[in-house]
Formats: sequence, C-alpha cells, structure tokens
Amino acid sequence: MKVQERYNEYVQKMHKIADVKYALAVLQWDQETYLPPKGADFRAQQMATLSEIAHTLFAEDHLGKLLEDLTVTDGLDPDQRRNAEHTLEDYRKNKKYSPQFVRELSECTSRSYFAWIEARKKNDFSVFKKSLQDLINLKRKESDILDYDQHPYDAHLNEYEKGASVEWLDAMFKELEPPLRQILADVSGKPQPEDHFLFQHFDKDAQWHLGLDLLKQVGFDFDAGRQDISEHPFTTNFSPLDVRVTTRIDENDFTSMAWSCLHEGGHAMYEQGLPVRQYGLPLGEYCSVAIHESQSRLWENCIGRSLPFLEHNMPLFKKYFPQLNSLTSHQLFAGVNRVKPSLIRTEADELTYHFHIMIRYRLEKKLIEGTLNAEEIPGFWNESYRSLLGVEIPDDKRGCLQDIHWSHGSFGYFPTYSLGSLYAAQFFAAMKKQHDQLEHQISNGDYLFVHQWLRDNVYQYGKTFTGSDLCNKITGEPLQLRYFTQYLTDKYKMIYGLSK
Amino acid sequence: MKVQERYNEYVQKMHKIADVKYALAVLQWDQETYLPPKGADFRAQQMATLSEIAHTLFAEDHLGKLLEDLTVTDGLDPDQRRNAEHTLEDYRKNKKYSPQFVRELSECTSRSYFAWIEARKKNDFSVFKKSLQDLINLKRKESDILDYDQHPYDAHLNEYEKGASVEWLDAMFKELEPPLRQILADVSGKPQPEDHFLFQHFDKDAQWHLGLDLLKQVGFDFDAGRQDISEHPFTTNFSPLDVRVTTRIDENDFTSMAWSCLHEGGHAMYEQGLPVRQYGLPLGEYCSVAIHESQSRLWENCIGRSLPFLEHNMPLFKKYFPQLNSLTSHQLFAGVNRVKPSLIRTEADELTYHFHIMIRYRLEKKLIEGTLNAEEIPGFWNESYRSLLGVEIPDDKRGCLQDIHWSHGSFGYFPTYSLGSLYAAQFFAAMKKQHDQLEHQISNGDYLFVHQWLRDNVYQYGKTFTGSDLCNKITGEPLQLRYFTQYLTDKYKMIYGLSK
Repeated sequence: MKVQERYNEYVQKMHKIADVKYALAVLQWDQETYLPPKGADFRAQQMATLSEIAHTLFAEDHLGKLLEDLTVTDGLDPDQRRNAEHTLEDYRKNKKYSPQFVRELSECTSRSYFAWIEARKKNDFSVFKKSLQDLINLKRKESDILDYDQHPYDAHLNEYEKGASVEWLDAMFKELEPPLRQILADVSGKPQPEDHFLFQHFDKDAQWHLGLDLLKQVGFDFDAGRQDISEHPFTTNFSPLDVRVTTRIDENDFTSMAWSCLHEGGHAMYEQGLPVRQYGLPLGEYCSVAIHESQSRLWENCIGRSLPFLEHNMPLFKKYFPQLNSLTSHQLFAGVNRVKPSLIRTEADELTYHFHIMIRYRLEKKLIEGTLNAEEIPGFWNESYRSLLGVEIPDDKRGCLQDIHWSHGSFGYFPTYSLGSLYAAQFFAAMKKQHDQLEHQISNGDYLFVHQWLRDNVYQYGKTFTGSDLCNKITGEPLQLRYFTQYLTDKYKMIYGLSK
Repeated sequence: MKVQERYNEYVQKMHKIADVKYALAVLQWDQETYLPPKGADFRAQQMATLSEIAHTLFAEDHLGKLLEDLTVTDGLDPDQRRNAEHTLEDYRKNKKYSPQFVRELSECTSRSYFAWIEARKKNDFSVFKKSLQDLINLKRKESDILDYDQHPYDAHLNEYEKGASVEWLDAMFKELEPPLRQILADVSGKPQPEDHFLFQHFDKDAQWHLGLDLLKQVGFDFDAGRQDISEHPFTTNFSPLDVRVTTRIDENDFTSMAWSCLHEGGHAMYEQGLPVRQYGLPLGEYCSVAIHESQSRLWENCIGRSLPFLEHNMPLFKKYFPQLNSLTSHQLFAGVNRVKPSLIRTEADELTYHFHIMIRYRLEKKLIEGTLNAEEIPGFWNESYRSLLGVEIPDDKRGCLQDIHWSHGSFGYFPTYSLGSLYAAQFFAAMKKQHDQLEHQISNGDYLFVHQWLRDNVYQYGKTFTGSDLCNKITGEPLQLRYFTQYLTDKYKMIYGLSK
C-alpha cells in the first residue's frame, strides 16, 4: 500500500475514534445541562460504554503497527508526520497501562468523587481523606507507569502541559512570588475602591441576554455553537463547528456571569478556530491546557477587565441594568479589579489568584512525592493560606474541600491556570507591540486584530508545538513573567495609584 | 457455564448495544432541538459511526451462538426465554442482509431524502420520482430478503406490526370504509360547528406553559423526562427514566401545540412505564408501532378531545388565554372535533384521517407489488383524494409530497396509524366497561384509573406479546372496528345531532 493510502487509513481510524469521543462529549454536555434527575444512572452507564469503545478502538494492535510504520516511512508531509508521531506517542502511553490498573484507577476515582461530595455536604475533610489517599497512592504508581526523569510529579504535570516539570515550575513560582507579594503589599496599603454596586439584584433574563450579547460582540460564532445553563460554567466541543459554552446566573452578582461568558467564550473561540480539516487528529486539537487557559484569560481579563473594554460596554451594561446608570467606567474598572485576599480560588482577583495556585502546587508536589499524607492536607492548607494570604480558613468547605480536581484524580492541573495567565499577558503584550492602536480599537468594540493575531499565531497550529515552543515562536522569547507583573502593575497603578 | 451465567452474558451484551443505540438517540435528539447549523455534517458522521458500531456489535457470531444455545436450553424463566427468542429472531433477520445491500439501501435512502427535500422546495414530484423508484426497487428486493408467505408488502408491514398482512389489512379497511363513509355523509349534511376561535393569536410563552401543565396533569414524569422545542414534534427515549418529548408552537393555532403535547405525552408515558429491569432487552421495549400509536391517540383523542377533559380544563385554557373567556366547554368540544375533509394528513380530524391512511396503504401495496410505478403516484393520489374525500389536490406539496415516510424508506408504517386509533378505542371502551365512573373522574382531572389500567395491561408487558395478541388478552377479543365507529358516532351525535 502506498504511504498516502496508509495515512488515509490512519485518518479514517482517528475519525471513528473522534466520532465516539465527541458522542460521549454530547452525552456529558446533556448530563450537565438538560438531563432529568432519574436519568442519571443509565446515562453514566451509557457514557462508560462509549468510553470503553473509544479506548478499545485506540488500543487496537493494527493501529499501533500502522503508526510504527508511518512514522519511519518517507512520503508524509510535515503536518502528516507530526500527526502520526503525536498519535504514536499517545498510543504507546496508552499501552503502558494494564487493564487492571485502568479499572482500579477508575473505581478509585469514582469512590473518591462521591466521598468528596459527601465530605462537602458534611463540611468535613476526614470523610474524604481515606479514598483520597488511595487515589494518591495510585497516582504515585502512575508516575512510575508513565515514567519520569527527575520528579514523580513531572509525569502528571506532563499530562496537561507537555514539557512541564517541577524544576521549571519551582523556578517559575520562585521568581513570581516576590513581585506578587510586593504588589499585594502595595495595594493593601491603599484605600480600597468601592464595589458594592456589583452586588445588587440583577434580573436573570437581562443577565442571560447580556451574556449572549457579549459573546456575540467578542466573536463567538452562534452558527457553530450555543450557550446553555449549567451548575458550573464549562466549554465543550463536538467539532470546531459545534462548540458549546455554559454559564450560570447569580441574581445578586453582576460580575459572575458576564465575565464567565467572556472566559468560556475565549476557550470556545479557540475551539472554533482549530483547523476543521484536522478533525480527530492531533493538529486539530488545542495546543495544551495552559494555552487553552491563556485564551480564556486573555478575553476575560486582559481584554474584558480592561478600561477600554468597559468604556465601550458601559451603554450595554446600563441598557440591561438601569441601576448602574450613574456609574462611570472608571468606577466599574476599579470595582471589577479590586484586590482582596479571599478563601475561594474561583472568586479570587487576578493577583491573589496565583497564591491559591502556589499553595495547591506545593501541596500536590508533596503528595505525589510522598512527603505529605492526605490527612495532613488541612493543616498544610490552612497554614499556607495564613502565611501567604493572611486569611483564616473557617472550615474545610471553604478550605481544602473547595476544588473538584483531586476527587477526579487531576493532579498537575492547577499550575496550568497560572501558566494561562502568564501566557495571556505575554501574548497580549506581543499584540499591543504589533499594533499600537489596539486598545483604541478595543474601546470601539473592534476585535478584528485580536482575532487575526490569534488565528495566525495560535488557532491554526493546533497541537503542532508545545505550549512553551509556541510561546517562543510567536512572541520571540520563552515565557517571561515580567509581562504579567507589568500588566498587573499597570492596571493597579490606575486603580490604586501605585508609584511604580 | 451455567445457563444463568450465559443469560447474563447475553444481557451484558444487550446492555452495551442499548447504550450505543441510546447514545445515538441522544445525538439525534440534540440534532432536532439544539444543534447549531454548522455542526450538521460532523454530527451526521458521528451518528453514522455509532450506528455502525451498534450494528457490528449485534452482528457478532458469538452472540448468535449464545442465542442459539440459550433458546434450546432448559433453565430460563419464561420472560428470559422470550427475550432470548425475540433477540434470536432479530439476529437472524439482521444476518439476512448482505453488507452490500445495507450500504446500497442506506445510500439510496439518503439520496431519496434529499430529493424529497428538493422536490418539496420546488413543489414538484418529478424531482423525487427517480430516486423514489430506486428505493422502491430496493424495498421490493428487501421483501425477498425478509421473505413472506403471500404478499411482498407483508414483509414490510411485519417490520412495524408483527403479524400484520395484506390479507388482514385489506379485510380491515374493507370493513372500516363503509361506516366511515356513512358517518362522513351524515355529518356533511349537518351544519358545521364554529371553530374560528381556535385560530386567533395565542401567546407563545403562554402556550409553552399550558403544554407543560397539560403534560404534568396527565402524568408525564418530569423527573424522568423533559419537553423541548423542535420543528416537528416527536418522542424519544434513552431509558425508561429519560424520555424526551418535543413540540412546536403555532401562534395562530391553539390546538396544534396543546393536543400535540397530549399525543407525544401518551407515547412518552408508555416509554416511562416500560420495565426498567428489562433495559436493552425485548421485554423492555414497546409492544409494536400500532400499540405505541394507540397510547398517543388514547390521550390525544379518546381523553384529550372528550367533553369531560375539556370541561375540566376550561379554567386552565382561560387562565392562559383570556380571549377564550366567553367560550363554553361544549363549543370548544365541537370546535376541536369538527369534521372537515382536507388535504393534509397530520391536520385531519379523527374521522377523515383514516381515508388519508387508506389511500397511502393502497398506494404502497401497489408500489411494492410492482403494479404501480413511482411516476404514477400523483395521478393515483389525486384521483383517490377526489373520490374518497372529495377534495382537489392543488399541488404536489399538499399532495403526494406531504409525508416524509417514503423518503426514509418507511413503507408499511402508515397502516399502524389507523390501527393505533382502533386499538385506542377498543382499550378505552374496555376501561370504561371496568369503571363506569371513568368519565366522571376525567372531568375531575383524575387519571389514576387510566394509568393503572395501562400499567397493568400495556406498559408492564413490553414486547411480551404481539399487538394483536395483547389486544385479545386485555380486552377479551381481537381487534374490533365497532369500538372505533361507535366512539366516533357517540362523539358526533353530541356535536352534529346524528340520529343513530
């Protein structure tokens, strides 16, 4: 068979696997949005079956042979070769897991999730600790299965961000912490801006329509996607031509939904921008979790919490919410950017957010290297919050039980949130460097340049590069923390009147 | 292996197949309700993949051997045996089709569907006739593949209603036609009741909420299902604990949505009532298409268009639609039951509806036996409508292009609509015989007895019996047309003052 025929066979196979995985994603989406309560058990079973089918299809020996063969044969173009290489790597990784380990992990994760739910209900971490420790033990085994050079946590970090390591992240957080602490100290010494106007009653229906308007304004394509309501906002996709975002509405908080729409919209526009012709193939997938997060944070924060954006949207906000009529755009800008050390990660401001991540990163590192046990988490957690953010943790629910990630077995995910902010700041700086009228355009609601830049520099590449290599290629330098600290300093100078 | 272990193996296999089929149903439901337009192509591909996987799983030789074995071994209880026998029958039927024929039929059906869409757009049957004739030729081949005793059409009738035959249906329609013609002649000679009040402007939102109220009132379980909007109303299910109905809203027609909700609600409550423990197995499936239709027609017509039901619901209708304030329940009863020969099957009254079916039945019989070609359809159609209903067909769209069924290759489906009405009337008569206060209960919005009767006599049995045998078992006699003609006569006596 000619090499192109073999490549096509590989593509057909990947399409089939993608079809099953996306079908599974439709079932998950429906589960979070519309599923009637009694349907939950059969739905879980149906999803497990699809998941098993996808797994079986991807594990077929024939695919392995095809990939081994394709990756050593001449005649593929560079993109085709990259696809085959990426898939072979995934294939080999997949083969490392014994069916027994997969089952054990899946069962343990399921137990762990329900224990977390229960623990939250009882506001008592001790209900969670046993199954969490079991899960950590399996995750430690998984480090060995996946293999690593220096630190067992590296194996898990790599699952979300290829090339990430403890060495790299230790250095990064070590460099990031002092300037962030300095900024926090500076703004804490200043009078805090008003933000009570954000927490009035805001009509649900008006919020919903504002959310749709904002998504449309920033460029979400409603012919290739839609928005629905779910308990927790998320983005999912069933092809680049069908990307779904969800949101939730808090009638007493104006910011919660509006900026969540921008956040999910950023994720979603990335998915809508991925190359359609690469459906089901690595180059049709997003680059990395951190790069995905950079897209949501770019739209939510760099653009969405900027003065130009708010200036442009004051009439829209006031149209839906007459109670904001006397508000100035600068007041709103100060309100939505107010810095306030707090207990809950997802409600944190752009500065203190990263202290939440540092705490989780340090904790996970210790858990995976085995120098901390699950039962020691509350102590470590509470002490870290005291020393880093100066807040007292009143109970487990507002402490170490707040995030779902561990109950899902997602160790190594949290750092990508910080990386996302850092990449976003560096990308946004690169855009502004190339286009000195960018902020003026944004103040006119014109995002053409942003879209073109993202299309040319991020969307079109899919998984061609690692996040780190992509950053190097499109900004001319590796990840630099100063873009983020400068971004924060500039912003807080306007709000708090910092001297630097 | 012990027989119960082998039975369990069969059950596990059927669960897996059901999981995939229901996943496919979720994708179809989403396609009709929420899919953004650009997502259509990949969605079609994803559904084709799931369909292929389900087909492959069901065609595995191992399943065949297991079934051959189970059906000749002692040790199964009667229900288990029935399940295995039903599945073996399906398995063998499935095996009769060559992969080539399946592909040919699938491609031809797809072409045919798009030709029908195009023909409707151009209002020109000739655009459809070529691919329709191709499809008919394949369906004639399929008669041979499926095998039949007397008439090639029998093979297709059996696909929807086991045991149905040309012999049986010919006799049935021959017996049904004269009394229906007589009733039509009688009511046509009387003054027609007013119904203009049904065709005013009715607020969309109010209609939506009325529909939900009606579904709730008749007993649809919203914890095990939901209602959404689609272009054409339908019912689908992903387990008995997740049954979805859809509806559409016509702002200028009060009856369209309200009675469609009752119709789909009837289908849906049947699905919700099927035994959960038989998930994925024949005894967990509905009895037959005609029995399914009996459920929708029982709720839509026997109950929903009865005077007691309307009396009970006048306050509800008036709450949502103050424009109906001066209407009496008898006026509404006469309006929603008015007899009027018309062009469109789905808009027909309960009497003339069956002439629409007779025309299609006779036409299909000739097409499948090869005594009529596709190009002769319009002539046959228009002449039949003239002679049976006395209406002139103005164009193909309101004539032989109105129904989607043939474009899908569904020959043999139409008769089940008439059978549904006949079964519904016979079941309703049986209920009333057992409970002489039933109509009084209905006028109080109390459907407890109806539910209990349907649960005990229809829902619980799943596919245990054929439709015909079920009727015999639960009403004490085979299908008798006089229940339906008596039902109509009683109704029209109240409206038109018929003497008999």
